[in-house]
Amino acid sequence: MVNVAVDVMGGDNAPVEPVKGAVKAIASGNDIRVYLVGRKDVIEGELNKYQYEKDRIKIVDATEVIETGEPPVMAIRKKKDSSIVKGLNLVKDGVCDAFVSAGSSGAILVGGQVIVGRIKGVERPPLAPVFPTDNGISLLIDCGANVDARASHLVQFAKMGSIYMEHVLGVRNPKVGILNIGTEEEKGNMLVKEAYPLLKNCPDINFIGSVEAREIPKGSADVVVCEAFAGNVALKMYEGVGSTMIGALKETFTTSFLTKLAYLLVKPTLKKTLKRFDATEYGGAPLLGLKGLVVKTHGNATHKEISTSIIQCVTFKEQEINKKINETINMLDN
Amino acid sequence: MVNVAVDVMGGDNAPVEPVKGAVKAIASGNDIRVYLVGRKDVIEGELNKYQYEKDRIKIVDATEVIETGEPPVMAIRKKKDSSIVKGLNLVKDGVCDAFVSAGSSGAILVGGQVIVGRIKGVERPPLAPVFPTDNGISLLIDCGANVDARASHLVQFAKMGSIYMEHVLGVRNPKVGILNIGTEEEKGNMLVKEAYPLLKNCPDINFIGSVEAREIPKGSADVVVCEAFAGNVALKMYEGVGSTMIGALKETFTTSFLTKLAYLLVKPTLKKTLKRFDATEYGGAPLLGLKGLVVKTHGNATHKEISTSIIQCVTFKEQEINKKINETINMLDN
Repeated sequence: MVNVAVDVMGGDNAPVEPVKGAVKAIASGNDIRVYLVGRKDVIEGELNKYQYEKDRIKIVDATEVIETGEPPVMAIRKKKDSSIVKGLNLVKDGVCDAFVSAGSSGAILVGGQVIVGRIKGVERPPLAPVFPTDNGISLLIDCGANVDARASHLVQFAKMGSIYMEHVLGVRNPKVGILNIGTEEEKGNMLVKEAYPLLKNCPDINFIGSVEAREIPKGSADVVVCEAFAGNVALKMYEGVGSTMIGALKETFTTSFLTKLAYLLVKPTLKKTLKRFDATEYGGAPLLGLKGLVVKTHGNATHKEISTSIIQCVTFKEQEINKKINETINMLDN
Repeated sequence: MVNVAVDVMGGDNAPVEPVKGAVKAIASGNDIRVYLVGRKDVIEGELNKYQYEKDRIKIVDATEVIETGEPPVMAIRKKKDSSIVKGLNLVKDGVCDAFVSAGSSGAILVGGQVIVGRIKGVERPPLAPVFPTDNGISLLIDCGANVDARASHLVQFAKMGSIYMEHVLGVRNPKVGILNIGTEEEKGNMLVKEAYPLLKNCPDINFIGSVEAREIPKGSADVVVCEAFAGNVALKMYEGVGSTMIGALKETFTTSFLTKLAYLLVKPTLKKTLKRFDATEYGGAPLLGLKGLVVKTHGNATHKEISTSIIQCVTFKEQEINKKINETINMLDN
């Protein structure tokens, strides 16, 4: 049985979607028990809407909520009775294997490190969102809060990302690229130039060299290693261009009678195409390298992303990802 | 009369499109003379296709070509008779006011600094591509080859970018943002945290604070200041997502008879929409802060982008951009 704590109070669609996602996950045929963390009355109100196996869902009352704008360190320290702090403590105490939240990224990243703690030898826990490409999906690691990384961090990101991609997302011998501004080995900033030979000589990964941002949406690499600032820029630009183009497309189809008619004709196919670009289809971003699993979903996650994220926690545990991370990282240090 | 040197040998569409762009530019009603730089026989062959005012086009023979893959520093040093070196020398010698090329970015960036030289006081010449947004266009500065910038560089980029945006592209009192991973002042990497207060206290610019990559396509800032590595990632991700989505869209419309019919109905409107996302519509990227103007167009530039870029050189000269840059940069140093 895999025990997953779910933040009922976090994200744009709380509490409706997290609860719905939890109910969906326990009905998926996996051995999952969900701990719904949040205001008890709110959770009970939502649960009343569904039929579900009662012993698969537990309620953990948490009276406080950490808002997105709050300074993370302060919020984690002060709001001991928040859903994020309580959820992370369930992982720390070994009651749960994982914590899934659509709430404040900053608080989840800080809390993950402070409360759950890092695996011995892991210098920095990277946040590794998955995003859609022409070939399926890729992992962008790190997009977290730890900017200004060192080269040794990037090597650890590559190892952890490879393990996650292979054993949780099912891509065999994943291709690892380093985010760069050109494909020649001498290209890059100081960090990339230092990390490149380390990655090239790293026996545990399938390193394919530099990847330009332009190639990422094409799926040239399964795991794209980068420092968090650049990773965040890449990820958010991806989302920004996508939503701007989809917006412009919608406008286009509502221009006239003819374009509206065109929309009716192309709608089913178009919906399938646009779905491919919807990052919320693929589960949340794991914060890797912690003594337990912490997953940050999109702020606007629906029950589908929450439920996918919960189910991925099962694979994470079954595949003993943290044992594998521990082994590979501590081999590196020898 | 503004004299513009045009690289006939550079880019995917050389020599056809550069020559066509030049012919188009001199017919635009502006006082332009173009120096076509490249293999004389090739240029003459292309020019034979057109009717044009003979005294508005000069041919400068250059027998060598710098290829995209060549190491830039070596190429500039060795290939003295290349179109890029000869074109840049025309600017250095005062024969031409500007040089426009679709050729090797690296060689243009290195050559611009080494041959044309920087304006006194300019620490680094940034490359500032223009790209389309929901509001029109924005300038991303720096996307050049000079990675690992210092905070003082970013302040100069902001000043030069503002001047270009206002006086060449016609945006009054342009909003300047710094590319960041959050909008709060305490967010960012070391560089951004150091540059932020300097930009905030800079009287010559209209600083609006941090801009997340997600906001860039919406046009939240007219000038987005960044270090070149992050800028390059943002720009190339923009282009990558755009082309991937357009590709997927094309597939969608060719799926069945109905979707093909839909395409016929929506085609004129859709073309207009997609054109908005085509960066080649808006002219090339200036390399600012040099004693002369050097413009890098997209590698796949057509005559339209070349011609727009040539015409922008007129505005650049008429508006005395380099005099303005000189004044603002050297005020900063006092």
